[in-house]
Amino acid sequence: MRRTLPGGASAWSTIGLDVGGTKILAGILDQDGTLAELRAAETPGRQNLPRAVEDAMVRVVGELRAGREVRAVGVGAAGFVGREGTVRFAPHVSWRDEPLQRRLEERLGLPVVVDNDANVTALAELELGAARGARDAVCITLGTGIGGAVVMDGDVRRGTSGLAGEFGHMQVVPQGRPCPCGQNGCWEQYCSGTALRRAAREHGAPAGTEGPDVTAAAGAGVDWALRAFEDVGGWLGVGAAALCSALDPEVVVVGGGLSGAGELLLDPARAALAEKLPGREHRPMPRLVQAACGPQAGMIGAALLARASIDP
Amino acid sequence: MRRTLPGGASAWSTIGLDVGGTKILAGILDQDGTLAELRAAETPGRQNLPRAVEDAMVRVVGELRAGREVRAVGVGAAGFVGREGTVRFAPHVSWRDEPLQRRLEERLGLPVVVDNDANVTALAELELGAARGARDAVCITLGTGIGGAVVMDGDVRRGTSGLAGEFGHMQVVPQGRPCPCGQNGCWEQYCSGTALRRAAREHGAPAGTEGPDVTAAAGAGVDWALRAFEDVGGWLGVGAAALCSALDPEVVVVGGGLSGAGELLLDPARAALAEKLPGREHRPMPRLVQAACGPQAGMIGAALLARASIDP
Repeated sequence: MRRTLPGGASAWSTIGLDVGGTKILAGILDQDGTLAELRAAETPGRQNLPRAVEDAMVRVVGELRAGREVRAVGVGAAGFVGREGTVRFAPHVSWRDEPLQRRLEERLGLPVVVDNDANVTALAELELGAARGARDAVCITLGTGIGGAVVMDGDVRRGTSGLAGEFGHMQVVPQGRPCPCGQNGCWEQYCSGTALRRAAREHGAPAGTEGPDVTAAAGAGVDWALRAFEDVGGWLGVGAAALCSALDPEVVVVGGGLSGAGELLLDPARAALAEKLPGREHRPMPRLVQAACGPQAGMIGAALLARASIDP
Repeated sequence: MRRTLPGGASAWSTIGLDVGGTKILAGILDQDGTLAELRAAETPGRQNLPRAVEDAMVRVVGELRAGREVRAVGVGAAGFVGREGTVRFAPHVSWRDEPLQRRLEERLGLPVVVDNDANVTALAELELGAARGARDAVCITLGTGIGGAVVMDGDVRRGTSGLAGEFGHMQVVPQGRPCPCGQNGCWEQYCSGTALRRAAREHGAPAGTEGPDVTAAAGAGVDWALRAFEDVGGWLGVGAAALCSALDPEVVVVGGGLSGAGELLLDPARAALAEKLPGREHRPMPRLVQAACGPQAGMIGAALLARASIDP
């Protein structure tokens, strides 16, 4: 994919859509690589028909494409997305085996590519963000749970069903904490926004303490907050070490809401990674860094995915 | 890479070498894809100079190439092999940051490619064995410890330092069994030939019971042996589930000495994988199968690697 595009008379664009549980973020990526326009719309809730979310997407694309030559639309969706652009399951939207790509193509009359939100976020980080220039990277997205993506030899690798990078339910503690998925000891029970609040309470935080409160308190040197970040960051490092053993990346990019805590989270994670990485005397240490593209990463990555699909 | 090669007047070959801790296995892969000749030599021990192993390799290549047009040599080496063909560390040979590829090229006057033994084994399974036709696969090699390889989008992915697929020291039990690597709870402490002997003893095997004895006893229905395979196979499934979460392969290929136990090992592994794989109601179940290329896999894969390097 070209990073800098030549200007020209017949300028064209792609549209990126990031469909999350609460909002749809949309933008135009112009041929010269600039992000031209943004729209946000509320995501119709899961009690709505699957069509309601689709209708909202069609509407926002209609607004953005007016007066432009839009060549393709990329969609990042929170959920399990199959290779053929079918959303098998979306936790926050009422899609089940929804042929989203085909339906949007029919309604928009444009080529559409659909991938999961973690994969398009990784694409943005790879092209423009913290993984820029890396051939091999692991992206870990820390929010309510853990999402992620695998970059090897310069491309986001989707796996046989488009589910590569679903790191959250790797078992890290046998018979460990119960997880809503039905298993025990899943990584996201120890390393996520949810886990941070839990750790803070265990270390003495007042009732009602939320994630941002923990970050603020840790920034002010409050003991229970620092210990909560030690716990959760330590588990981030343990999981990152397992992924680095398996995948040998040059860089581990940590994104999602929790990554906003920056070094409070990454310092203990780096310490645990350095301790746990096998053969660390015979290999370079992977960098563990904060994601750079921010909350627009998914939308930008979706637009980049659309561009890559027409500009190989 | 072509699977079937056209015959022709100017037939040529590649040579594959598998350098393990006890022996060097070498063979010729002819242009038509047949394995033409085999040689085995003892690996000079780690008390020897690094040159001793190199000398043995040069000698066997000299024997095999006589009267043939050999175009390249592939080497699979047990150890950490960097992308540039440098053996950073080999547990059973006295190589430390050994520029093996460059040195062999100088001595042989032929192009040489070096990779680790698990990666070339995976290449053989991918081209000719149990992963044939798969785009995404995970190969797990169970011997004294655990080795492995990652196949995504049709290629063995080496990672940034050539260390992808080193699954053995992923932590599966916090503060678990001590590992010679200095850590605790590494996967290979629960799932390997060593772990099988340990599990058999724990379940009542007589003193001195070795791996093949456990397999024989399990085949005869002896309780301690069946329970040992339940334990070790279960851990194989748990680790495979973590790798399948991260990599979403179509097939998991289990090779190495322990895989000779076949269904005794794979049945409990499949049960644990089916239990632990996240989102299993929304995805196809990856196949978990025994490797097909046998003890020559590394040597065949090394010859295939050499062929790929000259015949892209």
